[in-house]
Amino acid sequence: MSSKAVCLLSGGLDSATALACARRDGFECYALSFDYGQRHRVELDAAARVAKALGAARHLVIPVELRAFGGSALTADIPVPKNRSAEEMERGIPITYVPARNTVFLSYALAWAETLEASDIFIGVNAIDYSGYPDCRPEYIEAFERMANLATRVGVEGRTRIKIHTPLMRLTKAEIVKLGRDLGVDFSLTWSCYDPGAGNTPCGACDSCLLRRKGFEEAGVTDPLASLP
Amino acid sequence: MSSKAVCLLSGGLDSATALACARRDGFECYALSFDYGQRHRVELDAAARVAKALGAARHLVIPVELRAFGGSALTADIPVPKNRSAEEMERGIPITYVPARNTVFLSYALAWAETLEASDIFIGVNAIDYSGYPDCRPEYIEAFERMANLATRVGVEGRTRIKIHTPLMRLTKAEIVKLGRDLGVDFSLTWSCYDPGAGNTPCGACDSCLLRRKGFEEAGVTDPLASLP
Repeated sequence: MSSKAVCLLSGGLDSATALACARRDGFECYALSFDYGQRHRVELDAAARVAKALGAARHLVIPVELRAFGGSALTADIPVPKNRSAEEMERGIPITYVPARNTVFLSYALAWAETLEASDIFIGVNAIDYSGYPDCRPEYIEAFERMANLATRVGVEGRTRIKIHTPLMRLTKAEIVKLGRDLGVDFSLTWSCYDPGAGNTPCGACDSCLLRRKGFEEAGVTDPLASLP
Repeated sequence: MSSKAVCLLSGGLDSATALACARRDGFECYALSFDYGQRHRVELDAAARVAKALGAARHLVIPVELRAFGGSALTADIPVPKNRSAEEMERGIPITYVPARNTVFLSYALAWAETLEASDIFIGVNAIDYSGYPDCRPEYIEAFERMANLATRVGVEGRTRIKIHTPLMRLTKAEIVKLGRDLGVDFSLTWSCYDPGAGNTPCGACDSCLLRRKGFEEAGVTDPLASLP
């Protein structure tokens, strides 16, 4: 019997590739997505398609009330920045940052892992081609893992250790595209744009669209979504 | 202007006393409660009463979907254990443990703290007279605090540090009762029972009722809820 892993799945190309890594590593995958009032809720449909295509054992979408706190362009009525340069992305934490989002998401993953008696959690964070969010850095993930092992039955009863897997942490976006392709991820099922227009077309100008385009271009791979009308 | 603090508030006597400590320390308090499908939802009414009585600047109740994962007598259809001895409580993690609950709750507190630009969070955990939950221990809280400082804008921009305050950590239940009394907590507004009967009367036999009774008895204080019909 294969081991179980909880895999955070936004529906974007990174989390889809991270899920494909978990499958490659032989895990039975429990995919977990969140409806947190994001303006790009269309990504949840992508997550469902990706979970199915990659053979997840189960896919849960959990409602998470982060809007009550406000403070992010992804959940409040604040414009999403467009056409930022790589230098601008490196310069600080953008307004699309959702306060403590990955901490909240990983906490739910930890809760599910405990009830599944799983000790492995996959998350597609990346510290190379990213938007400058603090909760994507390796030192953050290591601190979460340490905390998780003190938070739970596992930590007290000590049969095994919780491990947070970040298979994309040190990859460029181009390397992620190539890895996803090699693992059979169907990129046409994924969704990246933070600010979809009418008819759910990618805006092409938010950080997420720009990073995706850069990744595909540098990998020399055609993005199936780029050919959308 | 006083500093802001986010205060986790279940509505029980511990969290009420922790909130009173935050008020004593001069904080403007943002009280945070969770509707997580607990069978003792009546505690949310207690939380609202306590927040008001102690002068919280705001009180939010956030819905948290933990039932989807199952695994606890507090959220699933599993009987709450009754009349356990102190030795039994010390012996392991009981079925009333909700997987990763404090981690999920503290993560939301962290999200709210970030949007409030608060760097202080209060939680009424206690490692002396407690039910044996792993996420009540000092080493867990320290690990969460460390993680929180890497997770957030604060951690990256470094203006200040997130501090998790646990004013009750080293107190016996009797000491908590005395402290709450001295700080003016109206215990008649609080709620502790995990398994309220018809008409919302405390069962008197769950861990939480037993610990509460022990605390009041040892403090030589009368519990106003004990005189309920």
